[in-house]
Amino acid sequence: MQSWLVVVGRSIALATDICTRVRARKNFRCCVAFVYFRPMNASPMKKINFSAGPAILPASVLQQASAAVADLDGSGLSILEISHRSAAFDAALTEAEALVRELLSVGDDYGVLFLSGGASTQFFYTAMNLLNPDETAGFLDTGAWSAKAIKETKLFGKVNVIASSKASNYDHIPTGYTVPDGLKYVHVTSNNTIFGTQFKEWPETTTPLVADMSSDIFSRKIPLEKFAVIYAGAQKNLGPAGVTLVIVRKDLLGTVQRELPSMLDYRVHIAKSSTFNTPPVYPIYVMMLTLRWIKEQGGVAAMEKHNERKAKLLYDEIDRNPKFSGTVANPFSRSLMNVTFVCTDESDTDRFKEAAAAAGCDGIVGHRSVGGFRASIYNSMPYEGVETLVNVMKAF
Amino acid sequence: MQSWLVVVGRSIALATDICTRVRARKNFRCCVAFVYFRPMNASPMKKINFSAGPAILPASVLQQASAAVADLDGSGLSILEISHRSAAFDAALTEAEALVRELLSVGDDYGVLFLSGGASTQFFYTAMNLLNPDETAGFLDTGAWSAKAIKETKLFGKVNVIASSKASNYDHIPTGYTVPDGLKYVHVTSNNTIFGTQFKEWPETTTPLVADMSSDIFSRKIPLEKFAVIYAGAQKNLGPAGVTLVIVRKDLLGTVQRELPSMLDYRVHIAKSSTFNTPPVYPIYVMMLTLRWIKEQGGVAAMEKHNERKAKLLYDEIDRNPKFSGTVANPFSRSLMNVTFVCTDESDTDRFKEAAAAAGCDGIVGHRSVGGFRASIYNSMPYEGVETLVNVMKAF
Repeated sequence: MQSWLVVVGRSIALATDICTRVRARKNFRCCVAFVYFRPMNASPMKKINFSAGPAILPASVLQQASAAVADLDGSGLSILEISHRSAAFDAALTEAEALVRELLSVGDDYGVLFLSGGASTQFFYTAMNLLNPDETAGFLDTGAWSAKAIKETKLFGKVNVIASSKASNYDHIPTGYTVPDGLKYVHVTSNNTIFGTQFKEWPETTTPLVADMSSDIFSRKIPLEKFAVIYAGAQKNLGPAGVTLVIVRKDLLGTVQRELPSMLDYRVHIAKSSTFNTPPVYPIYVMMLTLRWIKEQGGVAAMEKHNERKAKLLYDEIDRNPKFSGTVANPFSRSLMNVTFVCTDESDTDRFKEAAAAAGCDGIVGHRSVGGFRASIYNSMPYEGVETLVNVMKAF
Repeated sequence: MQSWLVVVGRSIALATDICTRVRARKNFRCCVAFVYFRPMNASPMKKINFSAGPAILPASVLQQASAAVADLDGSGLSILEISHRSAAFDAALTEAEALVRELLSVGDDYGVLFLSGGASTQFFYTAMNLLNPDETAGFLDTGAWSAKAIKETKLFGKVNVIASSKASNYDHIPTGYTVPDGLKYVHVTSNNTIFGTQFKEWPETTTPLVADMSSDIFSRKIPLEKFAVIYAGAQKNLGPAGVTLVIVRKDLLGTVQRELPSMLDYRVHIAKSSTFNTPPVYPIYVMMLTLRWIKEQGGVAAMEKHNERKAKLLYDEIDRNPKFSGTVANPFSRSLMNVTFVCTDESDTDRFKEAAAAAGCDGIVGHRSVGGFRASIYNSMPYEGVETLVNVMKAF
């Protein structure tokens, strides 16, 4: 049996060098430890990250992501310095696309793209690629992000706001509306991070949907065939900020008359498999690691159960505890991703903030347009994280 | 005197937890080691990265970048999961902007932006923001990237190609041309990664320049006042792929009549200090670390000397050694960043490729449109790295 030798150093290059020399002379199996010095006055506790986005990622993904920056799979190079045409990155990109297709059952009639610019770029990009000036896009206006998508779409075609919950500060998902005929597509924001609402039933229509799923993609099963375009900034359920996943039905492209800059043409990126230009290599790599993790957990169906269980724990406490009130009017509209609530007595707010922080709960302050608290409990949030917060609420 | 205890683990969360428990009971100073297992069959040698981009980064930057993914400055959170509105990221973004301004002497009359989409997006973005349909942009066509910028600009205004070296496969930077009057701006690609050429003297004109400096920004001093816009994808001299530095003269904005989507309007990003939407947090963070490193080295003037010294070493060997020939016709056009050469006897090519690889030199295969070899020796390439390659050439 061989012995293991662990070489520890602050310099990974030096530690690797020592490891190599030792291996050349002795029959050790080697591994290299990368040391960083944690300041004595810093919090020793790994925080529970309830931020709305950029948001929590699985601990195992962060470990692999950190190691790959020091050295990618023993290649002698960092993931930050390898060519986007290298075999190593090509393998990561191919795996990321395959995982998206597998996890959401995406067929070849859709392109799967890893673009930059965030959902904010897709607000106009979808319209630029799908909508002629005399054509109309329908919108379900469920919050600030819907409103931004409406604004940008108006630069390229006509807009019909089919239903809106703006009058009640977006405290529910509209129901009882009818989608009119003659629309090119209907745009929905599937989950509203700011207001804590989420579509549970998709609009009843055969018109293709365009969906901003930035904050709930891969959190539940979806009927893919209803969608013309799905787009999602990575930084909630998928990875770090800097890459946007786009799933787009190919047969709807090429129907607009306007000339498109190459970088703003879905067809160009489909033809080049997201490498028309240098893509955001590291954000894509970390997204691939996160997709692997989702698959290991049991895929989207398992995520859905996990998310329902976590959300139930937290909403049940909000409903039970007279100290707290939910901000979403209709329980059926409540988001499984972003749980918004206030202290029933507003003067408790600061004290609860402190109690949560003392328990390691980070990032639970609500958006300024709603106030109070927002606990974002995306895929990567463990059940135990929500339990910690609920225990603080119970003790309050 | 206190003793140090190093806690080593494959799980940083577990190691941190142990560290905390020990500290609570004993008077140790603690640090946490993050272990990754290096496969026995992998190369133990840190490679010398001559890739054209994404490209080499300083070893110290990679170490800090890796540690920040595990835990940002002892915060208990990863740089990948913190909010773009957090104090920690705000500090990094502010420092990055301040370093750009300090290193290139950029005054308040310019905006400094960290955008996404790469230089390929700037090809049309600059025209969209600066050029009306009846106005003309001048171009110096020095390679594939210039040609792409010309193509995208034609969607928004008129183009006048003032000079081009296309007829000789872009083997030199044109000279002897005159910049005509009446142009809105003149576009240059300051360094041509594919063809190994670089502007050493800027065009003689008072018309503002728009420059793609993706592959030589911060490598030498520049007369900032000549430029209306400077843009640079990070992945050569500045950081990982996924962020684009843009320096833009504010008084030239707002002169186009067309309506711009918010994400495609420099003024929106200037007003919001690059946080109109969620910016690419990690690529910006690593760029900040790289800018710190440039400052520590002595700034742009020191970089220029360092780059001249490295390039001289390599070009001298190409000129001295009959086995090799440079591909750039005019020595004055030779790039200090990308050194292109071929084996004089083409049948030596594969053997030299192997010899270089055996010495740890990675990424020196030339672009398919030139062939042979390309050694990219950006800021972060140490002198010793070039020496290694030159020694292989000498021994060949």
